[in-house]
Amino acid sequence: MDYPILSKINSPDDVKQLDSAQTQNLCEEIRDCIINTVSKNGGHLASNLGTVELTVALHKAFSSPKDAIIFDVGHQCYTHKLITGRFKEFDTLRTKGGISGFMNPFESEHDAVISGHSSCSISAAYGIYKAKRIAGEDGTAVAVIGDGALTGGMAYEALNNAGSGRSNFIVVLNDNKMSISKNVGALSRSLTKMRNKPKYHKFKFAFSSFLLKVPLIGKWLHNIIFSIKEGLKEIVYRKNIFSSLGYNYLGPVDGHNIPAMESLFKIAQGYTRPSLIHVVTTKGKGYSFAETSPKNYHGVSPFNIEEGADLSNNNNFSAIAGKTLSGLAAADDKICAITAAMTEGTGLADFAKDYKPRFFDVGIAEAHAVTFAAGLAKGGLKPYFVVYSSFLQRAYDQIVHDVATANLPVRLLVDRAGIVGEDGITHQGLLDVSYLTSIPNISIYSPATFEELEYRIKLSAADNEFTAIRYPRGAEKTCLPFDKEADFDIIKGNVNKAIITYGRLFSEASAVKEKTDINIVKLNKIYPLPNILCDELNGFGELHFFEESEKSGGIAEHLSAMLLENGYKGKFIIHAVENKFVPTNKVTDALKEYGLDAEAMLKAVSD
Amino acid sequence: MDYPILSKINSPDDVKQLDSAQTQNLCEEIRDCIINTVSKNGGHLASNLGTVELTVALHKAFSSPKDAIIFDVGHQCYTHKLITGRFKEFDTLRTKGGISGFMNPFESEHDAVISGHSSCSISAAYGIYKAKRIAGEDGTAVAVIGDGALTGGMAYEALNNAGSGRSNFIVVLNDNKMSISKNVGALSRSLTKMRNKPKYHKFKFAFSSFLLKVPLIGKWLHNIIFSIKEGLKEIVYRKNIFSSLGYNYLGPVDGHNIPAMESLFKIAQGYTRPSLIHVVTTKGKGYSFAETSPKNYHGVSPFNIEEGADLSNNNNFSAIAGKTLSGLAAADDKICAITAAMTEGTGLADFAKDYKPRFFDVGIAEAHAVTFAAGLAKGGLKPYFVVYSSFLQRAYDQIVHDVATANLPVRLLVDRAGIVGEDGITHQGLLDVSYLTSIPNISIYSPATFEELEYRIKLSAADNEFTAIRYPRGAEKTCLPFDKEADFDIIKGNVNKAIITYGRLFSEASAVKEKTDINIVKLNKIYPLPNILCDELNGFGELHFFEESEKSGGIAEHLSAMLLENGYKGKFIIHAVENKFVPTNKVTDALKEYGLDAEAMLKAVSD
Repeated sequence: MDYPILSKINSPDDVKQLDSAQTQNLCEEIRDCIINTVSKNGGHLASNLGTVELTVALHKAFSSPKDAIIFDVGHQCYTHKLITGRFKEFDTLRTKGGISGFMNPFESEHDAVISGHSSCSISAAYGIYKAKRIAGEDGTAVAVIGDGALTGGMAYEALNNAGSGRSNFIVVLNDNKMSISKNVGALSRSLTKMRNKPKYHKFKFAFSSFLLKVPLIGKWLHNIIFSIKEGLKEIVYRKNIFSSLGYNYLGPVDGHNIPAMESLFKIAQGYTRPSLIHVVTTKGKGYSFAETSPKNYHGVSPFNIEEGADLSNNNNFSAIAGKTLSGLAAADDKICAITAAMTEGTGLADFAKDYKPRFFDVGIAEAHAVTFAAGLAKGGLKPYFVVYSSFLQRAYDQIVHDVATANLPVRLLVDRAGIVGEDGITHQGLLDVSYLTSIPNISIYSPATFEELEYRIKLSAADNEFTAIRYPRGAEKTCLPFDKEADFDIIKGNVNKAIITYGRLFSEASAVKEKTDINIVKLNKIYPLPNILCDELNGFGELHFFEESEKSGGIAEHLSAMLLENGYKGKFIIHAVENKFVPTNKVTDALKEYGLDAEAMLKAVSD
Repeated sequence: MDYPILSKINSPDDVKQLDSAQTQNLCEEIRDCIINTVSKNGGHLASNLGTVELTVALHKAFSSPKDAIIFDVGHQCYTHKLITGRFKEFDTLRTKGGISGFMNPFESEHDAVISGHSSCSISAAYGIYKAKRIAGEDGTAVAVIGDGALTGGMAYEALNNAGSGRSNFIVVLNDNKMSISKNVGALSRSLTKMRNKPKYHKFKFAFSSFLLKVPLIGKWLHNIIFSIKEGLKEIVYRKNIFSSLGYNYLGPVDGHNIPAMESLFKIAQGYTRPSLIHVVTTKGKGYSFAETSPKNYHGVSPFNIEEGADLSNNNNFSAIAGKTLSGLAAADDKICAITAAMTEGTGLADFAKDYKPRFFDVGIAEAHAVTFAAGLAKGGLKPYFVVYSSFLQRAYDQIVHDVATANLPVRLLVDRAGIVGEDGITHQGLLDVSYLTSIPNISIYSPATFEELEYRIKLSAADNEFTAIRYPRGAEKTCLPFDKEADFDIIKGNVNKAIITYGRLFSEASAVKEKTDINIVKLNKIYPLPNILCDELNGFGELHFFEESEKSGGIAEHLSAMLLENGYKGKFIIHAVENKFVPTNKVTDALKEYGLDAEAMLKAVSD
């Protein structure tokens, strides 16, 4: 397909010029382009296919970048990128230096903020909205947030704050009945009820639109009826969670009907109270595989369009973690597993099916997940919270306040630790080492192999301790044999230098050993480090610590303090990511770029 | 007063035996005891006075510790402590080794979890509740949460999760129309509406209670009417935010009427859906000063009961920060201030009054506050989020994801950094150095004096950068003169050793200088450290780094990595808090205990 309409769209203004039929065709071209690109580059598919018409309607009703349109998480911003001047580069999606898979202000003035984590959009949009009002500038800011992201607490904090004043601030709820897995919780049930009672509202919209079109007195009459008289308002506006939080609730509206959405967006701009517009979309729309099984087509690797994605890959650390937990749960009825809306991604699908009463999908709610786990532990169970490293950042305070101070035996399985590749900046697991090691009472392990991961998880079930076990995205790589039961193991060499490392980088170090017979110190327990380690290291004249983490607060820095206090006099060099965020890149390429692969190691120790 | 009833209460069972008149007298004795103790030891007054009857009713209706009663934040747990066997030690409140001002499981089996931070109670209680059900144990768990704490997002995450299943889980909303300052946001307005429409409910409670008392068929009939028939339920149960989240909403009920509350608590235990019981209390009840001005009597220092608390103290870092911000705002209309329900505590009362359109109290919502600040900064303003160190932990991910990745010029004024004294474990500001220094792009300053604080805040308004300025609780202490404009200053001595320090500890180091003419390295910018510092330090044979922070991830560790990589060969010793939580103690005593005061410094450098 050569995209005759899409290829001519250089800005949202061009979209505004299209008539109804052309707009329809544009949407078809966008869908085709998304499916094609994601089938080649991988990416978020089902969520982006569901929001094509919604995004086009937003760009018709608003004027980006004067109006900031902020897509929560960014799982649904591909259409936005395609019609804000990024069609030509769209084939570079999720590649180094290419188009990011999420919102990115360094990429375009149409992306006001970075996205990647859930539930931030309302806070950011309300900040931009208030800044415009305070500065007396034109324009507005709109948050577009999914029903899944609404399970995240900060979305409520923002709704509560933004709902309290007089404004025409607008929140668009993209309700696709899903977060990433099937949406969970009581709110989800409430939304279902709202979706199923649209009659009242059809009347209301028609009446509201009609009034606004009446010359001279229309807007005045409209405001009287819809915004001022409490009595009447309760008849036409339904009472629900959003009206309780101060919003005009408008909807539900069909998220694939562009004129209907466009008129609602315009109506809401005329209000003097904030509005929440409930848009119902179909996740995966237009690609039958994704429409039938949206959770499997949330984020996908490259695939064949005719055959669908290959979902069978179990050769990764996540699958091993899930399988190990299931095995433990079979023998021990105290084992529980918790996920924050990531059942599939964290390898817990089988656990969820087989041990339903002990499986908890709490929604995109990492903060609650940790404190809930603390409660389960207090009640005598053995809770495992399985979570991506970058999302666990959300629960730093809860780990400190609710787990560590009471020293409760909560187990954190920290997936996607280290460099994650294509998802880029917001998804890198490069901070967990630094923030977790700031917390008293924690023990942290960082397995290098499937076997070591399995061993550590099993041990953590027996030990009743506050523990984190972190492991990377993807498959294991070949490693030298090592003693997985010790806190650390030294694989001796005949050069008076040592490489110190842990986790995935041990496979890189193993490859170095083939070229030069250097000592390799493999850390199994990475925090706290045993004092005896210093004695062992004192003999080496030169130490190179390689770490797939931010340098500041990493294990190498903790070790350097120990070494310096213990009077180590040799050379010590840290190889890590230093005070920067790591953008999209293949994992192997990123390791090379930051000097963390076997080649870089060999060069460093040979100098 | 000799507390004839209270002194005989050794456990909640004793409370259950009291008749109505005795119970009333008990409440009077409890109030008197709280006022007396807090007037001597300081503590949370208004919130505790408001919840005397509520707590007594809870202990009559439930059986602690089999039933876990979890008080959110713990600002209201004094009555609970007094009637669960801690009356005799209550005069040790908030002193070293004494009764903690918050819930503390190491103190009593009646305190199931630690408290101190807001909005965690529902998560923890639901965890304990589910653990009991999974293990087949008796008992339940109840969360008692204030309307202020309900503005915190994790409370919603928990409500959403716990509201989705069939259970008799109970949440008690203690609505005193306040958080710490006056409560804010849309929810607060909704609660006001609910409070003002109690008629329906009086009928409902009476009818519900009546039915439950009918022998044999009463409970059956009750469940049919109140839990099953959707139609009828919508008549008797009001629709509001809590019913949207899956809860039987019961209330509002008078929070000073023990029998009314007790019967509701019992009714809710018979339900098969979770309940939210809306209790209305008067903050400060029974002490006229506190009742009239509850926000000023939220947390107080020791005071004279007849004269009330002295509220005039402005000799502290918080007041200087607030005054400096006000001064800046007068000259620059881009300056904004944000607080998370801490207007008074953070010294922002005048700013709030004088620059209302640029002042934002967002509720107890630190996560939202940071991302909202990011939005304001994106919109061209100069936002200052003024927040206690330990509460900023709530926003770690937002600082990373929404501020640092985009490098937006958000300013964090981190109050209560370092040891806080009487509030104890959950309020110590000992982690911010570690978690903030893990974040790329940040610059961190730690002033030692009022003058330096003022200078740094003014500079941060001119520089448009992502900055944190951290300062301790309380007043400044005498310091040697130093160059406040440089990144660091070395106050030369004639001994070949140096003390390195920053923030409040510089005053301790200044006192050492009077005894021994040692070099003192005063850091102004504590992160990132300039490379030139290593060159300056290389000349010293012995370095002692004193730091009012956790050692792991602290500035001393960052420096030790720099020194080791730069080949420093001298002695290096870190003095900090090492891998432990610091309990209640006076600041001066705690500094002594952890080897951080002038005396300890002198001893360390003299060895």
